[in-house]
Amino acid sequence: MSLSIFDASIPVFLRGFDNFSAMLAKGEAFAQEKGLDPRTLVEARLAPDMLSLAGQVQRASDTAKFCAARLTATDGPSFDDNEANFAELHARIAKTVTYLKSIDASAFDGSEERRIVLKRRQGEVTLDGRSYLLTFALPNFFFHLTTGYDILRHAGVPVGKSDFLGPL
Amino acid sequence: MSLSIFDASIPVFLRGFDNFSAMLAKGEAFAQEKGLDPRTLVEARLAPDMLSLAGQVQRASDTAKFCAARLTATDGPSFDDNEANFAELHARIAKTVTYLKSIDASAFDGSEERRIVLKRRQGEVTLDGRSYLLTFALPNFFFHLTTGYDILRHAGVPVGKSDFLGPL
Repeated sequence: MSLSIFDASIPVFLRGFDNFSAMLAKGEAFAQEKGLDPRTLVEARLAPDMLSLAGQVQRASDTAKFCAARLTATDGPSFDDNEANFAELHARIAKTVTYLKSIDASAFDGSEERRIVLKRRQGEVTLDGRSYLLTFALPNFFFHLTTGYDILRHAGVPVGKSDFLGPL
Repeated sequence: MSLSIFDASIPVFLRGFDNFSAMLAKGEAFAQEKGLDPRTLVEARLAPDMLSLAGQVQRASDTAKFCAARLTATDGPSFDDNEANFAELHARIAKTVTYLKSIDASAFDGSEERRIVLKRRQGEVTLDGRSYLLTFALPNFFFHLTTGYDILRHAGVPVGKSDFLGPL
């Protein structure tokens, strides 16, 4: 037995969103404990031209959603990027998770070889499903999950590696 | 065809190290251009109790090294964590890459079901090779690669998502 494309995508994203939700909850509790306006965390970023915490959740959501849709050659739902507080970030994650859970594992059959066309700044890039998952979707997903963690940690929220990895 | 454990580990790590090296080079060029002591970047961190940029390279190296060794049930090389400048960080990556490239893909045959025992703060955890790769090794690797990026970006180094992802 080896890995399926499904194994290396949907359950990985679901687990990541569970961990992201738990880290956001720690952020919200931290703001409350310190008497901070929670929006200062939701809008926090590591550089002026980087995305905020809200942006990291939105891009993690889109990365997972587009990955599932592209690999199964179906259309995913459309989400507005208008989340402005912790409750809305949790709701964004929840609807992403609902979508991901709605897809049957069998829909990924043959997706290793499916041609995926990405629009990049330098033009269109075509990858097979395997390369798309391993060189684009998974790195991107973990990029946004980690940067969300780094924003919280930089702001003083007591999250640690075990929050990022989740229960093993 | 599906994915092999090899596909989802060694080439992913090699690609990540290529990108990490290129980002470190941009960090070094930035320090030179701004007249900064390069050590301020090598020792930069996002929170007082987080690892420095050097620490992120060291942990990415160890994560990839241990992953390869555990999945193939062999012993990997031992590396001291004594890198203190950009040249030494590049050398750490280079020796990690040399090790990763030395392992034949066939050594991963059957690693999906191999029992991997991790020593965690809360005690020992046993995972099969597939879960170890997807829930521990890959997330951890991307965690350190991303946090390295975030440290550089937070310090003003002009790296972008295309540096993180590398050429597609």
